[in-house]
Amino acid sequence: MKKRKATVELYYWPGIQGRGEFVRLLLEEAGAAYVDVARESQNGLAAMMRFLEGEVPGALPFAPPFVKLGSAIVSQTANILAFLAPRFGLVPDDAALRVEAHQIQLTVADFIDEIHDTHHPIAGSLYYEDQKAAAKRRARDFVQQRLPKYLGWLEKVMGRNRKSGGHWLVGSDRTYVDLSAFQVVEGLRYAFPNAMTRLEPTIPLLAALHDRVAKRLRIAAYLQSQRRQPFNQMGIFRHYPELDARARRARRVGR
Amino acid sequence: MKKRKATVELYYWPGIQGRGEFVRLLLEEAGAAYVDVARESQNGLAAMMRFLEGEVPGALPFAPPFVKLGSAIVSQTANILAFLAPRFGLVPDDAALRVEAHQIQLTVADFIDEIHDTHHPIAGSLYYEDQKAAAKRRARDFVQQRLPKYLGWLEKVMGRNRKSGGHWLVGSDRTYVDLSAFQVVEGLRYAFPNAMTRLEPTIPLLAALHDRVAKRLRIAAYLQSQRRQPFNQMGIFRHYPELDARARRARRVGR
Repeated sequence: MKKRKATVELYYWPGIQGRGEFVRLLLEEAGAAYVDVARESQNGLAAMMRFLEGEVPGALPFAPPFVKLGSAIVSQTANILAFLAPRFGLVPDDAALRVEAHQIQLTVADFIDEIHDTHHPIAGSLYYEDQKAAAKRRARDFVQQRLPKYLGWLEKVMGRNRKSGGHWLVGSDRTYVDLSAFQVVEGLRYAFPNAMTRLEPTIPLLAALHDRVAKRLRIAAYLQSQRRQPFNQMGIFRHYPELDARARRARRVGR
Repeated sequence: MKKRKATVELYYWPGIQGRGEFVRLLLEEAGAAYVDVARESQNGLAAMMRFLEGEVPGALPFAPPFVKLGSAIVSQTANILAFLAPRFGLVPDDAALRVEAHQIQLTVADFIDEIHDTHHPIAGSLYYEDQKAAAKRRARDFVQQRLPKYLGWLEKVMGRNRKSGGHWLVGSDRTYVDLSAFQVVEGLRYAFPNAMTRLEPTIPLLAALHDRVAKRLRIAAYLQSQRRQPFNQMGIFRHYPELDARARRARRVGR
């Protein structure tokens, strides 16, 4: 096999899509040579822990995901994406558009944090069952206020870019940010099917973006592959019916 | 007055330090010409709302803070800092060090989110008093697990950089990330004095970094000025004695 570029080593918890999935989607769309170390390598999880425990020189990751490319160790999902994207043509060369892409990604990161905290409002170290009452309260606010606010914002960003002829979130071609938006819609449909059924008519451009990403050749192949792990009750996006009330109509009031 | 560089317009909620403070600290250390629009300009708050409501062309901010510099509108705190820092010599030219600085800043951003959520674990739209029981549970976990984990990580980053001769978080000179670390220590001392009294002996390098930043001429002048708003019960860092238990000794177990 002819080696085109250095292989990217991705380090992330095995068994969940989690934040690692945003990096996987970028690497898959790029057709990049990569190893999902903790899943694919023998002792891969132990190798990952050595970085987290500070036994490897270089930038110290606080938590997975992180990537190693050559001698660079890069952590924090949005930072990883901003680091990899230019290497694979997944962000424009224009500096202003890069800054805009990054601000969208960071807003998606905030969105994901809030999605996670619907089922873990008290502590990541506790079981869901031990914080279920608080989760129900937090999820109710999330579904009524935060979910429409974030989705509505993404829809507006799509609409503004469309005015200048773009069919993606930023600029004239697909970027890593579009892949992340796809993943958020995908995850929300899994976790909050009732809320999404109510809200999707209000976000046609974002739903179309999701479909456009899903149909890309490499992404479509990836989604069918064993490399794509299913959603489950261990990741960020979890489906707890009690957090996704059916009857109540989501108000569209932001804060 | 001779104009050296374009004036930075900072937009942030008046009345709190909040996330805007990380941008202010950068601008103050840089000696930059800036306007804190919503605090200083007539109709400044209305001007800010026009951006948020999508009435101004360009990148759409999800929330404050955001800055305007020339035609660029940049939002998301960490993105703003990464955008401004090179313009004011507050990050090294070296690309790898910039990536490392950004990953530290993004980890600080996560830390700040968790600090905020100690008093608002259920919803930003509810009063603290309406989520006090959940706040007490979340704060207990935060003080016991997350606070030592984040502070310990920053201490380790300091220690690793020190081995290569650095007295700052990244590289050989102060960067925007050091200013942010200063603000976090400052805010935590206000919000969690008991927990910090227990923990500070374990983070001597970070405490020394805090002092080194506080003594910088421009920062010291800023902290004495009217431009520096005091901490209060509206911002990210709030002092609720019931969230900062006295007796219990913080365990130093991370997750």
